[in-house]
Amino acid sequence: MRMYDIIDKKKNKEKLTKEEIEFFVKGYTDGSIPDYQAAALLMAICINGMDKEETVQLTLAMADSGERLDLSDIPGAKLDKHSTGGIGDKTTLIVGPITAALGVKIAKMSGRGLGATGGTIDKLDSIPGFSSDLSDEAFKRQLLDIGMVDAAQTLNLAPADKKLYQLRDVTATVDCIPLIASSIMSKKLVSGADSIILDVKCGSGAFMKNYEEAVLLAETMVDIGKMAGRRTLAVISDMNEPLGKTVGNSLEVLEAVEVLKGSGEERLLTLCRELSAGMLVMSGMLGEADPGNEALLDKARSLVDETIVSGKALNKFREFVRAQGGDDSFIDDRNILSKAVLKRDVVCDKEGYLSNCDAEEVGNVSCLLGAGRLTKEDSIDSSAGIIIHKKLGDRIKTGELLATLYTNNEDVIETAAERLAAAYCVSSSPIDKKSVIMGVVS
Amino acid sequence: MRMYDIIDKKKNKEKLTKEEIEFFVKGYTDGSIPDYQAAALLMAICINGMDKEETVQLTLAMADSGERLDLSDIPGAKLDKHSTGGIGDKTTLIVGPITAALGVKIAKMSGRGLGATGGTIDKLDSIPGFSSDLSDEAFKRQLLDIGMVDAAQTLNLAPADKKLYQLRDVTATVDCIPLIASSIMSKKLVSGADSIILDVKCGSGAFMKNYEEAVLLAETMVDIGKMAGRRTLAVISDMNEPLGKTVGNSLEVLEAVEVLKGSGEERLLTLCRELSAGMLVMSGMLGEADPGNEALLDKARSLVDETIVSGKALNKFREFVRAQGGDDSFIDDRNILSKAVLKRDVVCDKEGYLSNCDAEEVGNVSCLLGAGRLTKEDSIDSSAGIIIHKKLGDRIKTGELLATLYTNNEDVIETAAERLAAAYCVSSSPIDKKSVIMGVVS
Repeated sequence: MRMYDIIDKKKNKEKLTKEEIEFFVKGYTDGSIPDYQAAALLMAICINGMDKEETVQLTLAMADSGERLDLSDIPGAKLDKHSTGGIGDKTTLIVGPITAALGVKIAKMSGRGLGATGGTIDKLDSIPGFSSDLSDEAFKRQLLDIGMVDAAQTLNLAPADKKLYQLRDVTATVDCIPLIASSIMSKKLVSGADSIILDVKCGSGAFMKNYEEAVLLAETMVDIGKMAGRRTLAVISDMNEPLGKTVGNSLEVLEAVEVLKGSGEERLLTLCRELSAGMLVMSGMLGEADPGNEALLDKARSLVDETIVSGKALNKFREFVRAQGGDDSFIDDRNILSKAVLKRDVVCDKEGYLSNCDAEEVGNVSCLLGAGRLTKEDSIDSSAGIIIHKKLGDRIKTGELLATLYTNNEDVIETAAERLAAAYCVSSSPIDKKSVIMGVVS
Repeated sequence: MRMYDIIDKKKNKEKLTKEEIEFFVKGYTDGSIPDYQAAALLMAICINGMDKEETVQLTLAMADSGERLDLSDIPGAKLDKHSTGGIGDKTTLIVGPITAALGVKIAKMSGRGLGATGGTIDKLDSIPGFSSDLSDEAFKRQLLDIGMVDAAQTLNLAPADKKLYQLRDVTATVDCIPLIASSIMSKKLVSGADSIILDVKCGSGAFMKNYEEAVLLAETMVDIGKMAGRRTLAVISDMNEPLGKTVGNSLEVLEAVEVLKGSGEERLLTLCRELSAGMLVMSGMLGEADPGNEALLDKARSLVDETIVSGKALNKFREFVRAQGGDDSFIDDRNILSKAVLKRDVVCDKEGYLSNCDAEEVGNVSCLLGAGRLTKEDSIDSSAGIIIHKKLGDRIKTGELLATLYTNNEDVIETAAERLAAAYCVSSSPIDKKSVIMGVVS
């Protein structure tokens, strides 16, 4: 078998076989296939596509390229969650404790953020004492003890994906649904969970800008998961404005606590309820593990609300923070988390209805304030970020508060304020509020 | 400007600007753009194409990447000729002397052959004493003295094309008309000639297997030539069987002499007459330099025939051979050229009409006999080759001679005989003979 012929086939829109895909992934990982041949194939895939079968084979080949986390000795339903990345996305901090409080095992390896999108590990690191570096053994013990764990990836999971992703990043071959789906799912298939929930973000702050593409990505990932023997559910959620009312690490942790205390922002709560309900149904603990069963989902939604009202979800969060070495006193006194020295209000200079938000730009402003990284080497200011006081569709008056910026860097605050204001549009006519749930694929 | 954005544009089927194409060619040549980014762009070009303007810009950028041969101090019309490569193609050895005898300056840098297709330099090297290694100065002096020169490329012409071609060769991005056309034309634009004749081969022994693609390649190259200020003419010629009746180096030189003596095979003579006539008209020596002018072309065809009959063309060939150090006595006694020790007749095992020929396979058989190279390092047996006794459409009887093989390698002769016989099909019903001239693009 020659890499040349594999490239030539895909250039001619032909379907690649399992053996050809495995030859490519193995050869590229072990260095016998050079970057330039892989780049040519990636571009041919980007333009000519891959069908469902090819995408599944690519995912499986990448999953097979490295280590796997074996959770088979841990009883019960084990769930993993993945978000395609958005602005102000703290759902893991909420749905994890809710579902774990209800008996689902939440086994999650999270990443750090890069660019406009924050990472869950960065948010958790803003809690004093919290450690995301767990050994495999500690990871499994915590999962067994309290039913929830969220750690930084330590195993060499899907190294083929890592190497391919770096090449895609410099050859303009990132935005290709089969490549995105296989990249995400290759890491999920080796994480040891038997069910996977996917939050596919869609809109101005997401990688997928339009609904059709988001659906296609969701369907592709769900297909891969199912063909690999995992229960898989995808929720497509709106990312045309930041999720909830905060962006930034400690600010988002505090907002997650608010939701768990029962006073969360409505759209954020709705999404967390929906994700949690899907996870509960998939776990099989309510009967048939069919996330398309509306009666079961309704029952699950009620359980989610009860778990918040009863305080069980908040308690699980407390347990989780403590288990990973964190000081949980900020849950009772928010002033314990470090605070930014500088605060700047951003007011609206028009009267009308908030009609549009460039959510990615809000993420960039948050980065600028210190909350995110532009390169992997940058450090993060966990106290920096944004509180957003208005949601799309809200009525706003001239001079009324739109957002408050927090930072320790005086040099950026004026630019950040200008850019934040410019990221929103105000319309004179009323705007319909859109649902945060755009669709579900199961 | 970033290479990433250039790749992304072409991936999205957008048109690249002159500046972007120059940035790519310059950066790839000087090594600041890595192979993998160039490979991604080449694949995107292969699949999404390039329009006429982009192709011209790519050609000019590659032409500008190296040295140029300056022939401006040589008076008169200077012509260069290029064949896209076929089996048994000895036209340069014929049209060069004919047109030079009529006063056109033939300034040609030729290549060596690789694979099924032979190179003109390899053919000339079978003449004892002949040297294809000329200094620039010797090249120009000979052009001035006798009006014809054919040497191996010594200048660093279009190094960008050389580097890109090597990358295309390993990334399955060779068969792309804008890339083929710009590769050929970048080298022609720096060769110092003011007119270019292109022989675009089409058929089973050519790179272009079908007529539509051959026309597209011819049109693209003619467009590039014209937009770069060169008179350019392309003849599309049939390559569904070897050209003439010989394949192999000394065999082809001897066949060229036969044509120049007035006893050439008909299809070969027709093509040489047509190419020569186009060259004469383009030179402007018959009046308006319009190769579309049929009256002028007719006049030129008569001149070509007269030049052969008068012996002037043969004399020019003799002059040319001597000028480059060759011993011209083989022109009078063909036995002077080295002969292969082994000879094997291939007879037909069916009765009927020769209906089909895999001309590329005939070229491969010739290679096997020793006449060609499989890798750049292989040496060539100039005496090896094939005489073909029948043309497509000819009636043939069981046991009648189809071809005679010549080689010094006993090990290959039986395999070669079997493969040669298998390369031809015999049909029971008569076959129309096709014209060797399939089309002309000017």
